[in-house]
Amino acid sequence: MALSHLDQSNYYDFLRFATVSADPARAQIMRECAIWLASKFREMRMEPEIVATPGAPVVLAKWKKGGSAKRRTVLIYGHYDVQPAEMGDGWTGDPFEPRLIDGMVVARGSTDNKGQIFAHMMGVAEKIKAGGPETDVIFLVEGEEEVGSDNLEAVLRSRKEELACDVAVISDTNMAGPDKPTLTYGLRGISALEVELTGPSHDLHSGVYGGAVVNPITVLTRLLAGLHHQTGQVAVPGFYKKVRKVAAWERKAAKALGVPDAEVKRQAGSPALGGERGFSAIERIGMRPTAEINGITGGYQGPGPKTVLPSKASAKLTFRLVPHQDPKEIADLVEKDLKKRCPKTVKLKVTRHHGGFPYFCDPTKGFGPAASKALSQAWGGKRVDYLLEGGTIPIVSVIKKVLGVETLLVGLSLPDCRAHGPDETFPIEYLERGAKMNQALLKEIARA
Amino acid sequence: MALSHLDQSNYYDFLRFATVSADPARAQIMRECAIWLASKFREMRMEPEIVATPGAPVVLAKWKKGGSAKRRTVLIYGHYDVQPAEMGDGWTGDPFEPRLIDGMVVARGSTDNKGQIFAHMMGVAEKIKAGGPETDVIFLVEGEEEVGSDNLEAVLRSRKEELACDVAVISDTNMAGPDKPTLTYGLRGISALEVELTGPSHDLHSGVYGGAVVNPITVLTRLLAGLHHQTGQVAVPGFYKKVRKVAAWERKAAKALGVPDAEVKRQAGSPALGGERGFSAIERIGMRPTAEINGITGGYQGPGPKTVLPSKASAKLTFRLVPHQDPKEIADLVEKDLKKRCPKTVKLKVTRHHGGFPYFCDPTKGFGPAASKALSQAWGGKRVDYLLEGGTIPIVSVIKKVLGVETLLVGLSLPDCRAHGPDETFPIEYLERGAKMNQALLKEIARA
Repeated sequence: MALSHLDQSNYYDFLRFATVSADPARAQIMRECAIWLASKFREMRMEPEIVATPGAPVVLAKWKKGGSAKRRTVLIYGHYDVQPAEMGDGWTGDPFEPRLIDGMVVARGSTDNKGQIFAHMMGVAEKIKAGGPETDVIFLVEGEEEVGSDNLEAVLRSRKEELACDVAVISDTNMAGPDKPTLTYGLRGISALEVELTGPSHDLHSGVYGGAVVNPITVLTRLLAGLHHQTGQVAVPGFYKKVRKVAAWERKAAKALGVPDAEVKRQAGSPALGGERGFSAIERIGMRPTAEINGITGGYQGPGPKTVLPSKASAKLTFRLVPHQDPKEIADLVEKDLKKRCPKTVKLKVTRHHGGFPYFCDPTKGFGPAASKALSQAWGGKRVDYLLEGGTIPIVSVIKKVLGVETLLVGLSLPDCRAHGPDETFPIEYLERGAKMNQALLKEIARA
Repeated sequence: MALSHLDQSNYYDFLRFATVSADPARAQIMRECAIWLASKFREMRMEPEIVATPGAPVVLAKWKKGGSAKRRTVLIYGHYDVQPAEMGDGWTGDPFEPRLIDGMVVARGSTDNKGQIFAHMMGVAEKIKAGGPETDVIFLVEGEEEVGSDNLEAVLRSRKEELACDVAVISDTNMAGPDKPTLTYGLRGISALEVELTGPSHDLHSGVYGGAVVNPITVLTRLLAGLHHQTGQVAVPGFYKKVRKVAAWERKAAKALGVPDAEVKRQAGSPALGGERGFSAIERIGMRPTAEINGITGGYQGPGPKTVLPSKASAKLTFRLVPHQDPKEIADLVEKDLKKRCPKTVKLKVTRHHGGFPYFCDPTKGFGPAASKALSQAWGGKRVDYLLEGGTIPIVSVIKKVLGVETLLVGLSLPDCRAHGPDETFPIEYLERGAKMNQALLKEIARA
C-alpha cells in the first residue's frame, strides 16, 4: 500500500459523519466514523484498533519504533463525536456538509474536535513518510467526549500497559486569538445536574387555582435566581471553599493575552458583559467557577397564550469548576442548597449528570517548555501565550489519574470558531499549521 | 321536521369536534362545529345564524314570541372552542373521544364549556316542545373564548339591536362544590403578555464563555422571581392601587362556601398551598389578583446535558385582576417594572396578548334574586352560595359595555372538573340538572 497523504478532502469526509454522541439514534454513524478513522490510520502505516465500549467505540493507533529505553512515547488524544446540530438552531447550511467560506470551513465538528485531531494526523502521516517522528506515537480518538467520556476511563485502565507514555497531547482548546500560539495550562471542571419541581399533581386552570396553588415555575425561578449573588458570585454556600488562589504571574499572563473585555463581548454578540466583580472577562472565564442554566422548561410553550398553572418545571444546570473544586462535592453542595431553599409547596427532584475535575499543570515544569518551543516554532517564532481555558476536558484528569502523566494542551481553535454553536468554523490553513506544530512538538519532546 | 330531543349522544358529538381555538390549523374544525351547532338549533325550532368573523364564526339562535312590550328577552352565552389538549399532557385517553367513567364524562370541553352550554340548549329545547319558555331567548355561542374573544365585541356591536335583551346568562363558572347551587357575582380579569430576553447573538459554549457572558435564562429567573414579594404579594409597583376593598359580608359568604384550604389542596394535588398572606385559599382565588408564569423556555431541553449558554429565553405571563384593575394599565405597570429591572446585559422584548376586565355585580339587586331562586329550585331548595370566581370571562364586561345589561353567572362546573387540564370531566347528571335550572331561571326572570 502506498503511504497515504492526508489532505483537505479527507478532512471533509471526516466532517460528513454526523457523529452526535448525545443522540442514541446515531450509534451506527459513530461506528462507521470509527471504521473510517481506523482505515486512515492504516493508510498512514500506523497500527489501528477499534475498541468496543458500552457506548461509541474508541479508535487506537500506534506507531512504535522502540529500541532505546530512553525513546519517548507521546499519547495524542482527540474525539470524533460532536455536539448536536440542527438547521433550526441557526445554521445557514447543512451542519454535516462542509462549506469553505473566506478561508473558514463551516461544519459541525470543524473545530471541535475533528479539525484539530486531523491536523495531528496530518503531521504524523508526513513524518512517517519521511522515516518516522522522533518519538513513538499513540493516537487515542474517542466518540463520547461531548457526553462526558463515560467509557474512556475503563479503556485506559484495561489498556494501561500498551498506553504507557511520557506525556499526553491534546488540541481541543482555544488559542488566545488568530496567530497567537497558546499553551493552555489549566481547564475548568464541570458538575452537571437537572432539577425538576412538581407542584400540583396535574396542570390546573390558572384562573381557577391561581393565587392559592403555588406555581412550580415561580418556585423554580426563585431557586435559580438564588444561585447567584447580586455581585455575580455563585451563592451556593461553601462553593468557593476549595478554589485555588491564582499566582500574580497568572493574572499578568491573562492580561498579556491581549483579549480585552470588548473582544469577548464582540465574539459573544452580547449587549453588555457581566459576571463576578473584580475580574476581567478572560479571568472570569479561566480562573473563576460558574453556575450556568443550560436549559429551562415548564408549562405551555406553543403559540399564543394558555392560562395554565403547570404541574412541573425543570432546568438543566452545569457548574464550571476550578482547582481544587471536586465535581461530586459541588453537586452535593448545590443539591443541599436547593433542598434547603425549596419551599414545601413543591416536590424537588435532582438528577445528576456527568462530572469532570478541573486541571492545572505548571507550564514552567516538565514538558511545558518543550511545548512552548514547539508552539513558537510553528508560528514563526512568536511569543507564546499562557491560558486558563474555561471549558472542560474530563479526560485530562483521567489520563493523569490512570496513566500518571501530564497533558500538554496545544489548542488550534479560535475563540470565535463557534464550537457548540451554529455555523461552527475552522481556519483551513490551521490544518497545515497544526501539522507543523505536531512535528515540532514531537521533536522537542524527544529532546527534552 | 319533528321537534328534536337533545340527548347525551348529541353532547358526545359536540365533544368530538377538536375545537382548539389556539391552533390556527383547526380553522376548518371550528367551522364544522359551528355548522353542527346551527343544525341543532334548527332542530330545536330556533332561528340559527352563523356569523362569520376574522376568526372562528359565532353561532346565534333566536326564539322570539314577542307580543307584549313587557316580555323579557334573555341572552344565553357560551363557547364551543376549547383549550389545547394533547396525549403528552397527561390524558389517559383521546381528549376528543368522550368516555363515561363513574358518572363523569371525560373529554376536553366536557365542562368548559360544551357541557354547560349544551345543558341550556336541552332546557330550552324541552320548553319549546311544550310551547315555549316564559321569555324570549337568544343563544350566542362563540369560538374564541379561550384565546380572548377578540372578535366578539364587533359582532355584539354590529348586531346590537337584534341582541337587545334584559339580562345575560352564562354557565362557565364553578359551583362551590357538588350539589351546591352557586351564583357567581364576580370574575377576575386578565392581562397576558410574553417576555423574551436575548443575550449573546448566538448560542455559546458555556465553558468557553460562561462567567463573562450573562446567561439570558439567569436574567429571566431573576426578573420573574422579582414578580412576587416573599409575602406572596405581587411586587410590581402600583399593582394593588385600584384593587376594590371587599365588604364584610363577602368574606362571610366566602367562608360559608365551606371550601377549606385543605379541599383546594386536595383538588390541586399540591404538596402544600401558598399565596398571599392574610387570606384563605378561596379568598386568594376570588378576591385577590395574581401574577402567574404559564410557560417558560430557554436553552437545551432534549435528553441529557448540553453545555450551551443560550442566546434567548422567554416566558408567558398572565396577571389575574380584580375590580377595579384595568388590563392595559396592569400590562403597562408590568412592562415598566420589567424594563426598569432588566440589566443591560440582555435585550428585553415584551409582547402583549389579550386582556379582559374583572367583573362585579351585586347579587342582591336586579335579576340576582331571580337567579338565586332558580338555582335553589333546580337543586331541590338548597341554600345558594355566593362566589367570586378566579377565572376570567372577558365577554361579561363587553356585554355590559355594549348591550348595557348585567350577566347572571350560574355555573355548572365543579372545582375538580380539571377545566384546562388533562382528563377534564363533567358529571353527566348535570346535563339534566342544568336543563332544569335553565327552565327555572327563564321562569323567574319572566316574573321578576
